[in-house]
Amino acid sequence: MIRLAIVGYGNLGRGVENAVRQNEDMALSAVFTRRDPASVCLQTPGVPVLPMEQLESYADALDVLILCGGSATDLPEMSPALAAKFCLVDSFDNHSKIPAHIARVDHAAKAAGTTAIVSCGWDPGMFSLARVFAQACLPVGETYTFWGPGLSQGHSDAIRRIAGVVDARQYTLPVEEALARVRSGENPVLTTRQKHKRDCYVVAEEGADLARIEREIVTMPAYFADYDTTVHFISKEELAANHSTMPHGGFVIRSGETAGGAKHTIEYALQLQSNPHFTASVLVSCARAAVKMHRRGQIGCFTMVEIRPCDLLADSLEDIRKNMI
Amino acid sequence: MIRLAIVGYGNLGRGVENAVRQNEDMALSAVFTRRDPASVCLQTPGVPVLPMEQLESYADALDVLILCGGSATDLPEMSPALAAKFCLVDSFDNHSKIPAHIARVDHAAKAAGTTAIVSCGWDPGMFSLARVFAQACLPVGETYTFWGPGLSQGHSDAIRRIAGVVDARQYTLPVEEALARVRSGENPVLTTRQKHKRDCYVVAEEGADLARIEREIVTMPAYFADYDTTVHFISKEELAANHSTMPHGGFVIRSGETAGGAKHTIEYALQLQSNPHFTASVLVSCARAAVKMHRRGQIGCFTMVEIRPCDLLADSLEDIRKNMI
Repeated sequence: MIRLAIVGYGNLGRGVENAVRQNEDMALSAVFTRRDPASVCLQTPGVPVLPMEQLESYADALDVLILCGGSATDLPEMSPALAAKFCLVDSFDNHSKIPAHIARVDHAAKAAGTTAIVSCGWDPGMFSLARVFAQACLPVGETYTFWGPGLSQGHSDAIRRIAGVVDARQYTLPVEEALARVRSGENPVLTTRQKHKRDCYVVAEEGADLARIEREIVTMPAYFADYDTTVHFISKEELAANHSTMPHGGFVIRSGETAGGAKHTIEYALQLQSNPHFTASVLVSCARAAVKMHRRGQIGCFTMVEIRPCDLLADSLEDIRKNMI
Repeated sequence: MIRLAIVGYGNLGRGVENAVRQNEDMALSAVFTRRDPASVCLQTPGVPVLPMEQLESYADALDVLILCGGSATDLPEMSPALAAKFCLVDSFDNHSKIPAHIARVDHAAKAAGTTAIVSCGWDPGMFSLARVFAQACLPVGETYTFWGPGLSQGHSDAIRRIAGVVDARQYTLPVEEALARVRSGENPVLTTRQKHKRDCYVVAEEGADLARIEREIVTMPAYFADYDTTVHFISKEELAANHSTMPHGGFVIRSGETAGGAKHTIEYALQLQSNPHFTASVLVSCARAAVKMHRRGQIGCFTMVEIRPCDLLADSLEDIRKNMI
């Protein structure tokens, strides 16, 4: 039985708590939080909620931590600090900062003899794997990543910071025409605007200047200016009724030619009703892999493309070879 | 530079010869054949074609062999025999016999200190990986594998053995309705007939009893009796003009629920204009992985789900982390 703890109890932490129940070789030992533990109500009876300060004293009682903090400020601090005591997995997803994050966690893990797998989830994570495998299968070709249809947390937050906005949800959608061209093997050059569009559902304050809010959204640099963006003003009730879930997904597609001229297309697609619950499920399988690797003496920091796929499963190698190859 | 040799020069061997040209870290040192070497004409100038008997004397000049024989009789003999001298990869694809094949190759490789990766290609191979990853992401759910549209060599051969048949091509096609139901997340129970159908293009001898040939095809046990099969009689010229390529592909789809009730669908799809050329390209990336693993001291027999994905690429781990995660 693998004894794991959740560190941080938001949407992702709740997802991990659920995911553990689907994995018979894993047991949730505790949840650690920076909030007042008495204010945290778990769905699993009998699992203690403990203050973060007590985490270190549980080192001998835990095989692996699943860090459920955010990539902006939590994980850059927590992952290296905790790798000095624990095996762990995280979902650090700031793509440009991943090499630096790996280096810091690797330093701590090697010094302490622990095993960490970072940037687990679906992008980075399953989509990273899809890109690596597609490149290996077709060295000459072009890889495209499309996101959505799905809810973007960062873009929703950006809209909420505009004066006069009460609440908002932003959906990222792949442009169907671009997807079709990529799937056809045409290998087109696509601008940012040609690949994705953005749909915004906004609850405004009563009497707010809707034209101004819309203008501030569609012209916002980096977030919206480079995209075709549609803004829908809706009521608070409509937002609660129709926009309370967190779907996401996307596509990794590579088209290429083998020498001799034959064309080939590889597509990996995800349709997820709940982004945090799916990410959590991937994190749990990575936690299992981290424990297996640690038991074999593989210490340091790894990403999903650096671990053996069979280590993600509870099944014996014998069963995997018999049933899944 | 990785020095490799092709063993067996049919469609797959020619595909490997092509694929090597797309991989700058690999060099084709020689092709070994059981035929008269003088009768084999390579596309690559300067590469020697040598009789199989000379292979053993090249042990020091080669880093890895790519075995391009068939799974019925060639590979069960060749892979264990050659693993006693060489690192190698093969595309053994008789699914029910894979565990026994691994055991024989592993025994030889461990005794000799070599590294073998067997059952490389797309199914087994990339589809095995898709099944393992999908199961890891969604422990509760159902996995479906569909093949086609694509040319089936075994079924084409079965038709050719019928009296009065001059030549034939058989295409396997997934049933679109079944694909749609699986993609919707319904997790249906599907019979063999509901999943795939078979299209046959047959050139008959002049004056042959076409009704009898058609009856013998559609009632053939194991091959056709359990499928909806369509038979088209065509001329030799039409077969040559429209049915001379070897396209294939398929889909691995898993739908499942995370605890809490959110539904998710994972799809991995391949569309291949040339089955042997794509399989060859995968084999070359596996040959690179076998050499890397051997240099690290990982000896024995492995499948694609037991190797680190990053080992398939020529790129440094640093570049992979920076550009592909």
